[in-house]
Amino acid sequence: MLVVQKYGGSSVANPERIKNVARRVAEYYRAGHRVAVVVSAMGDTTDELLDLMGEISPNPPAREVDMLLSTGEQVSIALLAMALHEIGIPAQSFTGLQAGIYTDEVHTKARITEINPERVIACLNSGKVAVVAGFQGVNQEGDITTLGRGGSDTTAVALAAALKADICEIYTDVDGVYTADPRIVPDARKIKEISYEEMLELASLGAVVLQPRSVDFARNYKVEVHVRSSFNYNEGTVLKEEKDLEKKGVVTGVAHDKNVVKIGVFGVPDQPGVAYRLFSELAAHNINVDMIIQSAGKEEGQNDISFTIGKNDLAKTVEILEDVVKKLSARGYTYDEKVAKVSIVGAGMVTYPGVAAKMFEALYEENINIQMISTSEIKVSCIIAEDAVERAVNAIHKKFELSN
Amino acid sequence: MLVVQKYGGSSVANPERIKNVARRVAEYYRAGHRVAVVVSAMGDTTDELLDLMGEISPNPPAREVDMLLSTGEQVSIALLAMALHEIGIPAQSFTGLQAGIYTDEVHTKARITEINPERVIACLNSGKVAVVAGFQGVNQEGDITTLGRGGSDTTAVALAAALKADICEIYTDVDGVYTADPRIVPDARKIKEISYEEMLELASLGAVVLQPRSVDFARNYKVEVHVRSSFNYNEGTVLKEEKDLEKKGVVTGVAHDKNVVKIGVFGVPDQPGVAYRLFSELAAHNINVDMIIQSAGKEEGQNDISFTIGKNDLAKTVEILEDVVKKLSARGYTYDEKVAKVSIVGAGMVTYPGVAAKMFEALYEENINIQMISTSEIKVSCIIAEDAVERAVNAIHKKFELSN
Repeated sequence: MLVVQKYGGSSVANPERIKNVARRVAEYYRAGHRVAVVVSAMGDTTDELLDLMGEISPNPPAREVDMLLSTGEQVSIALLAMALHEIGIPAQSFTGLQAGIYTDEVHTKARITEINPERVIACLNSGKVAVVAGFQGVNQEGDITTLGRGGSDTTAVALAAALKADICEIYTDVDGVYTADPRIVPDARKIKEISYEEMLELASLGAVVLQPRSVDFARNYKVEVHVRSSFNYNEGTVLKEEKDLEKKGVVTGVAHDKNVVKIGVFGVPDQPGVAYRLFSELAAHNINVDMIIQSAGKEEGQNDISFTIGKNDLAKTVEILEDVVKKLSARGYTYDEKVAKVSIVGAGMVTYPGVAAKMFEALYEENINIQMISTSEIKVSCIIAEDAVERAVNAIHKKFELSN
Repeated sequence: MLVVQKYGGSSVANPERIKNVARRVAEYYRAGHRVAVVVSAMGDTTDELLDLMGEISPNPPAREVDMLLSTGEQVSIALLAMALHEIGIPAQSFTGLQAGIYTDEVHTKARITEINPERVIACLNSGKVAVVAGFQGVNQEGDITTLGRGGSDTTAVALAAALKADICEIYTDVDGVYTADPRIVPDARKIKEISYEEMLELASLGAVVLQPRSVDFARNYKVEVHVRSSFNYNEGTVLKEEKDLEKKGVVTGVAHDKNVVKIGVFGVPDQPGVAYRLFSELAAHNINVDMIIQSAGKEEGQNDISFTIGKNDLAKTVEILEDVVKKLSARGYTYDEKVAKVSIVGAGMVTYPGVAAKMFEALYEENINIQMISTSEIKVSCIIAEDAVERAVNAIHKKFELSN
């Protein structure tokens, strides 16, 4: 079997844990499997590098940020290769470049465009474990790029696809994907199997066990992904195609996300091209817009547009809005950081009517006001007050009997 | 003017010092010069990485050591490029690979074989400062190599040669090259100009202001090198061809080296091939042998061979000697760690007779016993007792009136 394993920062946070990872890899290797391991930077390394950077420049060139941050993973791969060597397992480390991970030009948020893993394949074929740096790639210029938050997951899944691996195991500090955040809902249940689409929704919705882009990659290339803990041997959660799932529920899980700002642009002229101009401007600055709602404004011939963004993008968004509001001759804008998003996700939702209504009922029973609603075929999301989010998640989890 | 500047680890030890380096570079840039900067890892970074490594493996594969250590310089170049950007100087960082620094295959002690600095040239031509990682290169496989202790000096000189730079400035934590170690000889004088050959001898003899290999490179490619401090604006020491030196003294400086072990192999059969077998065995284990002396032994048909090595190599050397002494049917061996080497260096020595005698006289007047002597055209070295080294250096410095 050819296995790609990915170990996150907490799994390689110190030399002891790196040795622990080496022992886990060794078990697979000694059982006769071929193993490629993707690792993140050790524990707090990335934060330490960001602190150093902060002392030098508040707004450094993105190319140099990638040059800096990519060293974190390079340290990890070298140390893990050494740890494997130390227990008698032949291993070789590979930077993103050496593993043939090519990306676009967007520094700090690059997308993988192609993988040419010749050297990794040669390494595996020669009976060695390949240890590959997560989170990093190289663009056409030969410059180092990084894939953004959680990018090592994407590296692992993309590498698994390129190597045609039998499975991609994502080791993390949680046991798998739960029906809700166990820190908020004590009787949340671990989900044994989940479809790519459901996982994608959950990941996008703040259940950040996996980076959404990595799930998308897994779906596109049909990579079977097993999310599990590096601290125990429990079975985790397996991502696969919906048709291959053993059992399909109506609602699979409840997600919540506090990293939300609600923006309102009001008094926008009711004419074609307005939404286009607003959101293309935001997109040009790489700002991810999540929910979008347009409604008739209070005055005739005017509309109100609401949307949500992540908190990190607020300053930039405000800067853009100051300008766009003038250009569009809108009356103004507001923003609210004290909101959160709760969502239900389930592939079965399409065929069961009344699922959304049941969610709204749960919120109503808790006397929680819904500020925005957005739905997709397998998801319903509501924006509510941030301080109501824990009550909301528990009420919804109970309403759909997810702990059974 | 095209300037290559190199800043060592102590010059970039923390964000404040990196900003200081940026300001120095900015002065050159704003004066209209083109500047390529080579930097080492920040202060203790390399030691910290070695400590991490020590917790994982006592004897890791050299390829992985290079993968690990090369991150130190990568952090420095990113931060310096950011610091330059912050004060309005356009700059771009380059890893060894990106700067086109190719080396042989010998991990941890690689030699530069070729430099193809197309990207660095393009960067300089576009009006930016190029910030290049010292100490690292890439071999034919695309694997990262490192150049060994002091390798950033070699990077700087080799890059200056490849770029046909007007001058290569090596910034360090001392003011330049002195007639003797100022910590030992209070009235030691800074040498204004020195020939490559003299510097090479001084560097090899323990005056470790520059890595010998970098001096050799400078000599071969006739790169004018200016060694100076990054903490002040004093003129340092300029390395150039002997014919271009303003003034040639008989003796240029006195060097000393406490990193010496004297080895004696005695009762060696007086027959051909003995020295060859002994020293080829040591060379095969990468042990640098410095002085070698062979003399007739006490018994007929036997010789004694003495030589010196660095203290780090003692354990390995003893291991080899145990074996070689048997094979050669020698009577045995001894070693003495309590020795040091004092040397005088001067290009004028060749044409002035009696220079060595004057050195011996200085030692005799201090009642210091000479254990071994070795001479070259521009150098005389003596092995003496370690505890006499400070008296010896002062006496010789005075005898040759080097403070004038």
